[in-house]
Amino acid sequence: MAWKIALAGIGKIARDQHVPSIAASRDFDLAATVTRHEGVDGVENHADIEAMLAARPDIEVVSLCLPPVPRFEYAAAAIKAGRHVMLEKPPGATLAECHALEAMARNAGVSIYATWHSREAASVEAARNWLADKRLKSLKITWLEDVRRWHPGQEWIWEPGGLGVFDPGINALSILTRILPTPVHLAGATLKFPENRQTPIAADLAFRHPDGAEVSAVFDWRKEGDQFWNIEAETDRGTMELSDGGANLSIDGAMVEASDVALEGEYPNLYMRMAEILRTGGIDMDLSPMVHVADAFLLGKREIVAPFHE
Amino acid sequence: MAWKIALAGIGKIARDQHVPSIAASRDFDLAATVTRHEGVDGVENHADIEAMLAARPDIEVVSLCLPPVPRFEYAAAAIKAGRHVMLEKPPGATLAECHALEAMARNAGVSIYATWHSREAASVEAARNWLADKRLKSLKITWLEDVRRWHPGQEWIWEPGGLGVFDPGINALSILTRILPTPVHLAGATLKFPENRQTPIAADLAFRHPDGAEVSAVFDWRKEGDQFWNIEAETDRGTMELSDGGANLSIDGAMVEASDVALEGEYPNLYMRMAEILRTGGIDMDLSPMVHVADAFLLGKREIVAPFHE
Repeated sequence: MAWKIALAGIGKIARDQHVPSIAASRDFDLAATVTRHEGVDGVENHADIEAMLAARPDIEVVSLCLPPVPRFEYAAAAIKAGRHVMLEKPPGATLAECHALEAMARNAGVSIYATWHSREAASVEAARNWLADKRLKSLKITWLEDVRRWHPGQEWIWEPGGLGVFDPGINALSILTRILPTPVHLAGATLKFPENRQTPIAADLAFRHPDGAEVSAVFDWRKEGDQFWNIEAETDRGTMELSDGGANLSIDGAMVEASDVALEGEYPNLYMRMAEILRTGGIDMDLSPMVHVADAFLLGKREIVAPFHE
Repeated sequence: MAWKIALAGIGKIARDQHVPSIAASRDFDLAATVTRHEGVDGVENHADIEAMLAARPDIEVVSLCLPPVPRFEYAAAAIKAGRHVMLEKPPGATLAECHALEAMARNAGVSIYATWHSREAASVEAARNWLADKRLKSLKITWLEDVRRWHPGQEWIWEPGGLGVFDPGINALSILTRILPTPVHLAGATLKFPENRQTPIAADLAFRHPDGAEVSAVFDWRKEGDQFWNIEAETDRGTMELSDGGANLSIDGAMVEASDVALEGEYPNLYMRMAEILRTGGIDMDLSPMVHVADAFLLGKREIVAPFHE
């Protein structure tokens, strides 16, 4: 038996990832969408979340792919109506609202899942396993992409709460917090704000590691040509490179093959994980990637850089 | 029997509050200070926390009054040396480091206390008790003070991680999170940065309350003359005004007398509370006021205002 699911927020990420992943899933049937804009061919659409919840009591799960700022109201409405909730990353616009959603879900007895799709990339678990018994000397995240290519017309990423370059950067941080055996915390950061925008276009982060390893990150949205989403780590027993956003792993220069399960794909894996959570009635709200982002805004030095025009 | 305590970071708040509170406490004896600058007359001083910890194994408790950015290293050193730790507000420069300190303290079996001195103001508990059974309609925080008067020469408050006007503002938020029966979360904020500074001089915050009450805050460091630290709340059964930073409470215009215990004073109460925590072996790391501040930096609209010169 498959769960009937509604998808709210039909933008680029919904069309590119969520719709095909649900279509391919044995666990979920896409029963409705919620959007004020164009819906999905052949799927019932509602302009309003409350209207959908009232019209479709048979829909047990709501997956939210809206930008972070409006997401809370949708999630709160779904939980109040007794539905399980799956949240695109980041799980909200503030940490306090995520804490509130978790408490609401617990009180309502429904499941809630803060997804981190990059953690499902094919080689992330292999990297985690390899690092588990090594002493880390240094780790460097390099996340360089062209915002014009990956976020065309997405004005919300430049508005307050839109995160700017931390929208992709939080993917790197979701991998970092998954693969490191011990947590790190931010020791310093520089955030580069275009003079005509509210969110940073680039950032440099330095973390403190309990054993003194050098852990740092560079995020930059101004990279044209080749794109880089790499994490390199040097340990007491070799080096690893996790490249292409977690898809590929090499140890001391030799490629490691990913497992079949890992190769299913990031979003199909998220929906498999959601089905597991629903079967066990659990809650998965790991906010650690978002804590690092909030810390970067709190502690970061602000620099004003050249204006950005799309 | 009194615990021997060391005080690290001998600045304005240490001299004004911590030293006299410890002197008046039956629970603690000030056995050492740690500062690279001027110490306290008649008290052994060490320039370095590690040196103090090595020289004085008899000192069981370390109270940290340094600015937030250097605080982590001192706290981590004290915990590693098996000492109990008391932290001035805010408990750190990042949320992740506070989570790390709590985990370290748990592993080491020592107590850690993130203090919020404004919660100990004379009428805060009375306000909490009064609000507990009322339906909130609106709550407005007004925190207006003159930075030149209260933070003379404190350059760190303008540096990244120094919080700016959120240094006093977090006091208001520590009261808010104590007196409200249900948590709120930030829905929007404007942060005003002087063009020559890294931290805001003023901020407007709007919160979302689960029952739709209007909850807001205005923090401004540019207020000359009369100073205001007030919280006004309107409920279904009357209004309250908590004024003078929590010292005084009036209900529907009539003053409420504070209890004798509450009147001991904010910092004496913090040290009494620390003694309780030490007796029971507990941990008290409520980060909710700091979560709201991190959320404000994360979600806030940045505005550049006139430069600030002391």
